[in-house]
Amino acid sequence: MINKHRNNRYNDISFINQIKSMAVIGVSRSRNFFFLRNHQENFKGNLYAIHPNIKKIPNFDDGTKGKIFSSVKDVPEDVDFVFIAVPRSKVIDIIDDCVEKGVKLASIFTAEFSDSGTEEGETLEKKLMAHANNKIRILGPNGMGLYYPKLGIAWRPNFPHKPGNIGFIAQSGGICNLSIYTLAEMEISFSKVFSFGNGTDLDFVDLLYFLSNDPETDIILGYIEGISKGRGVALQQILKENDKPIIIIKGGKSKQGSIAAKTHTGTLTGETKIWETLFKQYGVIEVDTIEKLLNTARLIECYGMFQAQNFAILSISGGYGVILVDLLEKQGINVPSFSRDIQKKINEKFFTSGTSSSNPLDVSSQIYDSDSIYDIINIALSDKNIDGLIIDLPTWYFNMEYHLTKDESFEPTIIKAFGLGHKHHKPLIPIIQRVNCPEDRIRITRKLYEQKIPVFGDPSEFIPLLPKISYAYHKKNKKKKRN
Amino acid sequence: MINKHRNNRYNDISFINQIKSMAVIGVSRSRNFFFLRNHQENFKGNLYAIHPNIKKIPNFDDGTKGKIFSSVKDVPEDVDFVFIAVPRSKVIDIIDDCVEKGVKLASIFTAEFSDSGTEEGETLEKKLMAHANNKIRILGPNGMGLYYPKLGIAWRPNFPHKPGNIGFIAQSGGICNLSIYTLAEMEISFSKVFSFGNGTDLDFVDLLYFLSNDPETDIILGYIEGISKGRGVALQQILKENDKPIIIIKGGKSKQGSIAAKTHTGTLTGETKIWETLFKQYGVIEVDTIEKLLNTARLIECYGMFQAQNFAILSISGGYGVILVDLLEKQGINVPSFSRDIQKKINEKFFTSGTSSSNPLDVSSQIYDSDSIYDIINIALSDKNIDGLIIDLPTWYFNMEYHLTKDESFEPTIIKAFGLGHKHHKPLIPIIQRVNCPEDRIRITRKLYEQKIPVFGDPSEFIPLLPKISYAYHKKNKKKKRN
Repeated sequence: MINKHRNNRYNDISFINQIKSMAVIGVSRSRNFFFLRNHQENFKGNLYAIHPNIKKIPNFDDGTKGKIFSSVKDVPEDVDFVFIAVPRSKVIDIIDDCVEKGVKLASIFTAEFSDSGTEEGETLEKKLMAHANNKIRILGPNGMGLYYPKLGIAWRPNFPHKPGNIGFIAQSGGICNLSIYTLAEMEISFSKVFSFGNGTDLDFVDLLYFLSNDPETDIILGYIEGISKGRGVALQQILKENDKPIIIIKGGKSKQGSIAAKTHTGTLTGETKIWETLFKQYGVIEVDTIEKLLNTARLIECYGMFQAQNFAILSISGGYGVILVDLLEKQGINVPSFSRDIQKKINEKFFTSGTSSSNPLDVSSQIYDSDSIYDIINIALSDKNIDGLIIDLPTWYFNMEYHLTKDESFEPTIIKAFGLGHKHHKPLIPIIQRVNCPEDRIRITRKLYEQKIPVFGDPSEFIPLLPKISYAYHKKNKKKKRN
Repeated sequence: MINKHRNNRYNDISFINQIKSMAVIGVSRSRNFFFLRNHQENFKGNLYAIHPNIKKIPNFDDGTKGKIFSSVKDVPEDVDFVFIAVPRSKVIDIIDDCVEKGVKLASIFTAEFSDSGTEEGETLEKKLMAHANNKIRILGPNGMGLYYPKLGIAWRPNFPHKPGNIGFIAQSGGICNLSIYTLAEMEISFSKVFSFGNGTDLDFVDLLYFLSNDPETDIILGYIEGISKGRGVALQQILKENDKPIIIIKGGKSKQGSIAAKTHTGTLTGETKIWETLFKQYGVIEVDTIEKLLNTARLIECYGMFQAQNFAILSISGGYGVILVDLLEKQGINVPSFSRDIQKKINEKFFTSGTSSSNPLDVSSQIYDSDSIYDIINIALSDKNIDGLIIDLPTWYFNMEYHLTKDESFEPTIIKAFGLGHKHHKPLIPIIQRVNCPEDRIRITRKLYEQKIPVFGDPSEFIPLLPKISYAYHKKNKKKKRN
């Protein structure tokens, strides 16, 4: 990565919320016009294809509107944004054209600049910056650029069209793809995703500044391997002023991981301790896998930030309940007794012998009496001393072939009961274990996702995240009180 | 739990491998003959229903073979095993009948004995033991008893019929159900599962002794909350002599968890440190969730015990590769360079620019050239310095709608490549992330399970298990060398 010496300044890219036209420069017949097609799928403004020789693209330009041009300079209207996928040797000329045309933002997919680790690549990247000359902002090179569903900017097929409120910044395009498709499956959408590759111009700090001030973004996710020397002060300043939840993976923390990161994006990953201190100070939630990053986003998207000091458990197996208590206590979360009046009310609804009506609740076969389960959950969540509720229910309970009696009201009642977290403004987190009946699991999880209820298959997926969210929640509240 | 003062003795139940006939005592019309039906599904020997008044059961007894009797004593042939689900007040009389009949093993489902926490329950359990008088072995009370697929003994519907080589011991029936259905989905089967409830007669130690010597069992799983005073020496003796992999969850390790365990099965959970030392000394693999218990069993079932000191990674995203390196190093596992000759051979197969052909491999879009990926995996696994390989490949790669070109050979070639771990006798572990296209994921995972290839969706599911398996592997090898 090229050292910028920009220190405490941020590049302003707030204009991207008003992009009206874009061009894909370097459409490729051998790739079946891949990047053009992906943007064509849903781009809301005028879309142009730029290629020196190609005069016809099936199902794109029908000769009536003249959407193919040999140079971006020939486009008769303004072009706000370009996606560049041309051979490396042509990138500089293309950038010159874009500057001349007055393009505001270029996303450069082409690789083998500083990422190649060669002097030639480094030199070319410096030359690129000199030609851009602060007149055009650049994402990349060696990145996927911008995904912005509201405007239909999307570099891959089947990226969701629905805009959401989560922003994401990563160098790696692969990690962005994985995250976009994963959240789509959870019925959660992004506001904007940036894959900034080598980060020659726009880097993690610029993009974090943007998302932190972006009215379309409520939660910020990031995967970062490192930042340039001299950008630390700027980063700290943003974190200080920011009041949105930020969740970050810091890649390359281990010795071998930092070497792998150097190969990956040419980034120096820096001192692990400094990062950890910084994150802790500003209530940034740090996790170590993409799955945990997205699961944290999912929990916050569903329930906002929350306190997790005292949880209740409702289990259909006493043993599983004991395991959950152990896991929670390991994370510093209590499973306390219910308040006396709450316990009394729960006892009135409890009719199974040989199980436990105290916290952790062990409902056993009473689960089949779904109306009473609804009531018990409702009462438990109304306890002032309880911050949230974890429920475990294996998949086969949603398949009537596994039941004693076929009760058609079981599924809708249980799903309604799982929505009670929203009524009480407390996180209710179901574990629907991934056992047999995977098709039933798909049906149930989709129904729950639609109602903004998170679902997990394994307690390890979310229990370690609860104290992190709780810590960030208290940090944020403290800050609010100070201001 | 009642103190047995049996110390260093084990109850012998090797006879269960020869069960030829069984009776369900206390068939229930209101439960639609649930337990009888479940055994009827697949029991290989003669099956009898016992009830004082019921003379007819639809689709069970057609009056020709006389399979319903008012007492077990009336059955004209030997009865080896009985499943008892009668009101608590009748259990003692039934046990008297069984002793008189010469029944060898009784599984008592009925609850509210010592598990009730009442003096009355405790007294009744002692009385039960006195009446059994060592002439009949008892599983329970308050347990689901025995699942033995080879003979068709099964307490729930749709328990798999195929026998496997994994034994499982738990007090809790709910945990057994979850485990049986989960492994079934992974195409892995149990030899025997014991849910021993209060463990009045047969306890964890007896059952571990049995499985450790059972020729039908190769891997032993257990969920244990505690054992009776005085049984520690016996447990230690079994662990010392055992040469099978044992994987255990010790429930109730936390302060609140031990209280929950007391409510659950009336068990005193004992000192955490003592358990941990014991497990470490004898190479018992300890995990903290059911999911990790089953995932460890799955890895060992697929690949046997293995060393995990040096792993290779093949990722389609450089960033994800960096994350995997960090996760592995956190667990003490190296991601070393390939040997020089291996690296040379890999380079010959690598043709994508901007990625990494060294370990961690970042194949990026070369993944679509599945033949070259097959070769790269084959070469990487042939490296003497590499113990195993982790691969990540999100679900959408198996859905042609997400591809540039529709290559029908992609899926079969990749699945064949994922089988290369077996060729090299090294664990090859694919992460197929749970993103969009869940239906495609079901198809792919089923194909992989059939070929004994484990699949995970999240690296946290298995990476923490690798050093545990490796430690147990070395413990076992050391012991072999000593003997």
